[in-house]
Amino acid sequence: MIKKIHHINFIVNDLSRAIDRYRTLFGEPYAGIEKLEQRGVLLARFKVGDTWLVLVQPVNGDGAPAQLLKDRGEGFFLMSCQVDDVKEAAGEIARSGISVADLHPRQGLDDWRVVDLDPIFGAQFQLVESSQ
Amino acid sequence: MIKKIHHINFIVNDLSRAIDRYRTLFGEPYAGIEKLEQRGVLLARFKVGDTWLVLVQPVNGDGAPAQLLKDRGEGFFLMSCQVDDVKEAAGEIARSGISVADLHPRQGLDDWRVVDLDPIFGAQFQLVESSQ
Repeated sequence: MIKKIHHINFIVNDLSRAIDRYRTLFGEPYAGIEKLEQRGVLLARFKVGDTWLVLVQPVNGDGAPAQLLKDRGEGFFLMSCQVDDVKEAAGEIARSGISVADLHPRQGLDDWRVVDLDPIFGAQFQLVESSQ
Repeated sequence: MIKKIHHINFIVNDLSRAIDRYRTLFGEPYAGIEKLEQRGVLLARFKVGDTWLVLVQPVNGDGAPAQLLKDRGEGFFLMSCQVDDVKEAAGEIARSGISVADLHPRQGLDDWRVVDLDPIFGAQFQLVESSQ
């Protein structure tokens, strides 16, 4: 059901400084600095193989990313797994006993539609449907 | 220089319990429970797309994985990036100003030869040379 690792998110305090460091390893960010208003974050993404690395800087204190930065500091945030149909996959996973945070997909970057799972042994996973 | 995300490691307290949960999402582990003596860990790996997810349980208190489990708890541990020649890549990265923990590669699973970078904004990266 899961086809590949679609993207991996990293929480950072200072996006510009993080981009400067990441570009040494991963080249230029795909679209410079982007904004995902509904999550209260600025971000930048790098394509590595067929996976996106996404740097995420919270810019307001309300969202889940800001809370995570407060609780755990900078670093790995979540791993998002690509599926064909995110609603169907989320339902199937919930029925198999894995706890799903919200069965209703939310909009991510571009055409990404995502569903968060509850943490599994300290790691945050997500499902994503995307044409990319 | 970096070709793809080769593997991602997760630290867990109890490998058997973690395998039970991960197999629901990612199928059966590739080779059951494996052991990496020189790191003092048991592990299990799952292939997702062309990336390995590796669950790592420290079994002695001396190594870096055990220390990380103590300091940060379970969850994402490191992301390993595939390069053609790990010594050459590590040298090039060090010259570009990214701090490399040890320029001498160490042996991982199978034919994996790895070099750890120092953490970058809270995230642990590694370079790996591998025929897989």
